[in-house]
Amino acid sequence: MTDGPAVDVDSLRREGLLAAPNGPVSVEHDGVGRVALTLQPTGGSPRTVRVPPGVTVFDGASWNGVAIDSTCGGHGTCKKCKVRVVDGSVPVSRLDARAFTADQLRDGWRLACLAQATQDLTIDVPPLVTRPKAATVGVGRQVILRPAVQKRYVELEEPTLADQRTDLARLLDAIDDLEPTPDMHAVRRLPTVLREADFKVTAVVVDEVLVDVEPGDTRERQHAIAFDLGTTTVVATLLDLVTGTPVAVRSRLNMQQPFGGDVISRISATMLDPGMLARLRTAAHETLAELAAEVCEESGVAAAEVYEVAIAGNATMTALALGIDPEPLGVAPFVMSCAVPPVVRVGELGLTLHPGARATLFPALGAYVGGDIVAGILATGMDRDKRLRLFIDVGTNCEIVLGDGERILSTAAPAGPAFEGGAIRCGMRAAEGAIETIKLDPAAETTDAAVTLGVIGDVSPVGLCGSGLVDVVAELVRVGLVDASGRFVADDVAASAAPALADRLTSIGAERVFVMYRPAPDTAPEHTVYLSQRDVRELQFAKAAISTGWSLLLEEFGIEAREVQQVLLAGSFGSYLSPASAVRIGLVPKLPVLRIVSAGNVAGEGAKMALLSRREREGAAALLEEVRYVELSDRADFNDAFVDKLAFPG
Amino acid sequence: MTDGPAVDVDSLRREGLLAAPNGPVSVEHDGVGRVALTLQPTGGSPRTVRVPPGVTVFDGASWNGVAIDSTCGGHGTCKKCKVRVVDGSVPVSRLDARAFTADQLRDGWRLACLAQATQDLTIDVPPLVTRPKAATVGVGRQVILRPAVQKRYVELEEPTLADQRTDLARLLDAIDDLEPTPDMHAVRRLPTVLREADFKVTAVVVDEVLVDVEPGDTRERQHAIAFDLGTTTVVATLLDLVTGTPVAVRSRLNMQQPFGGDVISRISATMLDPGMLARLRTAAHETLAELAAEVCEESGVAAAEVYEVAIAGNATMTALALGIDPEPLGVAPFVMSCAVPPVVRVGELGLTLHPGARATLFPALGAYVGGDIVAGILATGMDRDKRLRLFIDVGTNCEIVLGDGERILSTAAPAGPAFEGGAIRCGMRAAEGAIETIKLDPAAETTDAAVTLGVIGDVSPVGLCGSGLVDVVAELVRVGLVDASGRFVADDVAASAAPALADRLTSIGAERVFVMYRPAPDTAPEHTVYLSQRDVRELQFAKAAISTGWSLLLEEFGIEAREVQQVLLAGSFGSYLSPASAVRIGLVPKLPVLRIVSAGNVAGEGAKMALLSRREREGAAALLEEVRYVELSDRADFNDAFVDKLAFPG
Repeated sequence: MTDGPAVDVDSLRREGLLAAPNGPVSVEHDGVGRVALTLQPTGGSPRTVRVPPGVTVFDGASWNGVAIDSTCGGHGTCKKCKVRVVDGSVPVSRLDARAFTADQLRDGWRLACLAQATQDLTIDVPPLVTRPKAATVGVGRQVILRPAVQKRYVELEEPTLADQRTDLARLLDAIDDLEPTPDMHAVRRLPTVLREADFKVTAVVVDEVLVDVEPGDTRERQHAIAFDLGTTTVVATLLDLVTGTPVAVRSRLNMQQPFGGDVISRISATMLDPGMLARLRTAAHETLAELAAEVCEESGVAAAEVYEVAIAGNATMTALALGIDPEPLGVAPFVMSCAVPPVVRVGELGLTLHPGARATLFPALGAYVGGDIVAGILATGMDRDKRLRLFIDVGTNCEIVLGDGERILSTAAPAGPAFEGGAIRCGMRAAEGAIETIKLDPAAETTDAAVTLGVIGDVSPVGLCGSGLVDVVAELVRVGLVDASGRFVADDVAASAAPALADRLTSIGAERVFVMYRPAPDTAPEHTVYLSQRDVRELQFAKAAISTGWSLLLEEFGIEAREVQQVLLAGSFGSYLSPASAVRIGLVPKLPVLRIVSAGNVAGEGAKMALLSRREREGAAALLEEVRYVELSDRADFNDAFVDKLAFPG
Repeated sequence: MTDGPAVDVDSLRREGLLAAPNGPVSVEHDGVGRVALTLQPTGGSPRTVRVPPGVTVFDGASWNGVAIDSTCGGHGTCKKCKVRVVDGSVPVSRLDARAFTADQLRDGWRLACLAQATQDLTIDVPPLVTRPKAATVGVGRQVILRPAVQKRYVELEEPTLADQRTDLARLLDAIDDLEPTPDMHAVRRLPTVLREADFKVTAVVVDEVLVDVEPGDTRERQHAIAFDLGTTTVVATLLDLVTGTPVAVRSRLNMQQPFGGDVISRISATMLDPGMLARLRTAAHETLAELAAEVCEESGVAAAEVYEVAIAGNATMTALALGIDPEPLGVAPFVMSCAVPPVVRVGELGLTLHPGARATLFPALGAYVGGDIVAGILATGMDRDKRLRLFIDVGTNCEIVLGDGERILSTAAPAGPAFEGGAIRCGMRAAEGAIETIKLDPAAETTDAAVTLGVIGDVSPVGLCGSGLVDVVAELVRVGLVDASGRFVADDVAASAAPALADRLTSIGAERVFVMYRPAPDTAPEHTVYLSQRDVRELQFAKAAISTGWSLLLEEFGIEAREVQQVLLAGSFGSYLSPASAVRIGLVPKLPVLRIVSAGNVAGEGAKMALLSRREREGAAALLEEVRYVELSDRADFNDAFVDKLAFPG
């Protein structure tokens, strides 16, 4: 495809194709629900992913291992990220108008980095055509491709009695720009490989270390795996380091799950049972190994072609994977063994990849602001974006970062298990059958029509996950069935506020509940999917902890909430939260919905960046100096602030 | 003991106690035979060692793991190395006269660093009284004690919510003078050890790496093992790094022996059998592990208190121990994989010591001037002594180094197996029953009285080892039974030249032989211990290769042989060679016997120095730049020189 003639923008606008006055566009959406993005790579199998509305096609594809060309970092200037919208509609930006002819635009061609998905879309993804110098990852981060993994192909002169240089000296003399130190594996392989390959070999260097020498020219084969080592879910992304693109993504439950659902229960387990640390370590290793095997198999990449690994995990997950006793992380004063874990050979983590492959684990800012958050700060550019931004990773432990590119503060708030579905009567994790979105229409004609549920998978609802919990409470507050103090209103108030919904407000024993789904009209409340008064209280406590956290950070910063220009919701739960509901319950500051952005799996994105660019990796290390950690647990004003935050702003 | 009043030197000389006009003394000796040194440490078991005449009591003790105080490096100034000669006689030096009272001198007190053993001696060794800042090792080398292993004891403040520094930061903040990088083992141990030991701990640093943290104050326990990894014999010395003294020495045959007696046969074995490299590697590891266990057990040192290992071996032994294919070392153009082996964890060498312990293997100058020679150059100070010195490590492969402290040249000469007892009819290694010295008296009254044999162990002779071979040929040349061309003389010539020995010159088949030992007067020659005409030829070829080597180095240097101020005979064979015989057969330049010095196990001494001093270790690395390697195998003038050197100078 070539750039077409200049497009008549006014005619496009008349056709309704041009929505935004200039790009990058921010398309209006109501900040709730989820959209389905079906990606059809040329010559590959189609894949459907669900993303929060407003996420760009480029990010949605990248986060899910579908590579789209790009060299400019999502600014619409390289015009490489061309995709075709074959089903659904994406408005044309001014930059689209420069990149495509009118016919192409009518055929659905768009720049993926500017195309926000606000409805279900089906997208044709052309094959990669360039060898890029940069990759777009994280939240609009352009990363110059300078991986720690580097290959050099050389054709050496054979030794003679007049030239008895060692094999190593001969190889290194032929490489101008690197001066690596050899590791044992490379030294062992040198004599054999040089002679078998007639002295035509590829040197493999990882971060100043010569890890191998391979016969012939293998420069096209360079891979690494980025792991997001979550307490609940672990995600592996296999990266092609030549193109900077993900070639396979897999996730699975952390095999440590059976030993405890959150970090505190796993730390407690190690305190009760001296053999537990070893078991948890093994479980982490098996999780990583299984995912590594899966991404290699899916992409047809040999394990020995994976030369490096980066892992972003919280401080407890990092400690357990490395076999470090986590007890001091779990009891005051919450102290880590070290902030920057030593770089280890991947074998230390139970991985069988290239024998010289090393694993870099992200450094941590504190016992409860771990490597996953450092990776998230990196992926969102919190340390360089000049806007005042608030980053919230919502979970059992909620990490909060506030920065303006100059100053960065971080803290942790103990939100408890509500968002993971824990301590909620009908709570469950975001798995098949979970209600993840809900809309209430108090003016509907029937009680059935008054409730619209979004359920994961094509099944009947069986429970309520975290984003559904936030949604339902937010909607109940909006329609007046829950008051600002968090109490279900009296029946008579309910009947007048939301007649179509009033019969769903009932009781189980002495406790008031709201029924979201009942298999049959006469099903007893305890057999429905419902929300109880206590569930509302759990959510209040969780969101109060979080909003106390960001309030105190704003106070430290000396600014008002309304000055925040962007709120990034991160983490496997936060990314799927409806921004509108998050605002309504007060989990995030009261801001226009468009300022609240789903950031995706930023920990995994940060891990990818560390593998794609040594400079970004150094940037992550520098964050230890740049970010100030604010400990909340010894603040005298914490409890007052917390109580203030329990109410729903409405 | 305190320094006594000034001693009347003249009266001492009258008593015959003062032999040399000033110290260090060089006592006259005839450069042949061996002396027995019996060392009796206070509170320890006596040990008898056999050393060449002229070796100092200090060196003889140190080489055999008996510690004698010293801080001055053998210059008689620190007066710490006081020992008492209780049997045998050692002349008093001027420095002895200053260090002791006349009564003490009469009681046998001497400074060990100046006391040359020229006869059998029994020596009382007092216990160590000082914590030295330096140790005397190698050949008169004083080494300032600055090991790579360093311990720091700290008492830390316990963490609080106001001081959440990581365990690592807390530890490193308390150590002023080091900034080590932690390894994984240390990071794993930190949380547990700090809390169990009430934050009173000892940090263990090895060469910039924090390898451990130990409860309480363990600064007194610091050990390392120096290995001389020889093709035939492997020697381990356990060092106390606090005092700089050896606390245990053990040696044993290299378990690779059954796979081939010399490096070439072991390289060949790996070329014929693909599994052989792994087997040889395992054999090397088992040898090292067994010796490590023995020295630890002998000294009561726990394996986990050994924090570092240094290994000096030739290029082939080094390659095999590390699992590097040695084939390119064995075939022209003789190329090494690398000159400086990577530092490895001791586990890579099959050793179970401290989990963070690393092994440093000496770098090599060439495929046939290996790490053992680099260690030897270090131990003998070839790179800094201003005298013109020639270093010869005699063996199957003979390494030769010539230097004057400014320029250093090295080469290797293929001497063949004669010195190891190989290819010699009655040849054997220097084990029990081997004739190691021989003196002939052509004017003796009986044939039995005409031959004086030195035999290893209290047994009848069963064969001839290398030093015995050199002795017997030298003696046969001296008494005229072998002529300058290396032929046994005719019977009539023999009868007139050495009547008492003539009947020992006989034949086995067509070959002339000289009988050294016969169990009974009528024993047939083939059942005696004899030297054959072919044995003489083998020795001629071996010594011609060596003398060609040093001749060509002298030529490169542009000097005459007589200008050489010291010849150092090194290696397990070279150190036991009789200097007089070595001169007589032309193995070394024709120089006064006192200029020819036994240097002991210099490879092992160099390994000790690398462990006692990081500066010395850096010195070893610097030798790679300072020493020029001269390849003989492609020199046009080699064969001419070799033929010239076949004759015996007489």
